[in-house]
Amino acid sequence: MYVVIFRSTRTLENQDLYRRWANQLGLAVKKSPGYISHFGFRDQDSGEGVTISYFESEEAIRGWKALAEHLEAQNLGREEFYSEYRVEVAQITRAYGWKKET
Amino acid sequence: MYVVIFRSTRTLENQDLYRRWANQLGLAVKKSPGYISHFGFRDQDSGEGVTISYFESEEAIRGWKALAEHLEAQNLGREEFYSEYRVEVAQITRAYGWKKET
Repeated sequence: MYVVIFRSTRTLENQDLYRRWANQLGLAVKKSPGYISHFGFRDQDSGEGVTISYFESEEAIRGWKALAEHLEAQNLGREEFYSEYRVEVAQITRAYGWKKET
Repeated sequence: MYVVIFRSTRTLENQDLYRRWANQLGLAVKKSPGYISHFGFRDQDSGEGVTISYFESEEAIRGWKALAEHLEAQNLGREEFYSEYRVEVAQITRAYGWKKET
């Protein structure tokens, strides 16, 4: 399994348009082949955030990156929503979890 | 470079003690061999959060996991602070960034 760590800083302008755009992007990625799941956080004060997305393979990530709908979104992201971002692609080598017994 | 994705849900009790504990843990990891950097987010409403830490190697991550100070912190985390967590270790295969020209 592969993971994409997308760390970004928002300009904090166009808040309504951003929400619609982010929402649409969230729906688009779910339909991208090899997509598994994603989650994210954003600090509304600093504008900093992270979105973490899981995919079955690096090919699936490349496919998502090159999807027409996503390319258009990337352009809008650079033009309108972000002052900065960083993308890291990584292969998960181990994973484990813990849950409190209730 | 390796990354540890620590996704957790807080019980939202012991807020003061948690802040001190998290702060101490943040100082401890910085002194752990092979540590590079870390950042995190938490949604105060849902209690969900993520901490992302970068290390030079898997050995460095294993070293941090087994550090006495960290083992003690892990126990306290399970006893007092978290209802659930998940740890993923991954090897970064590519990375790139973008910054708006000013």
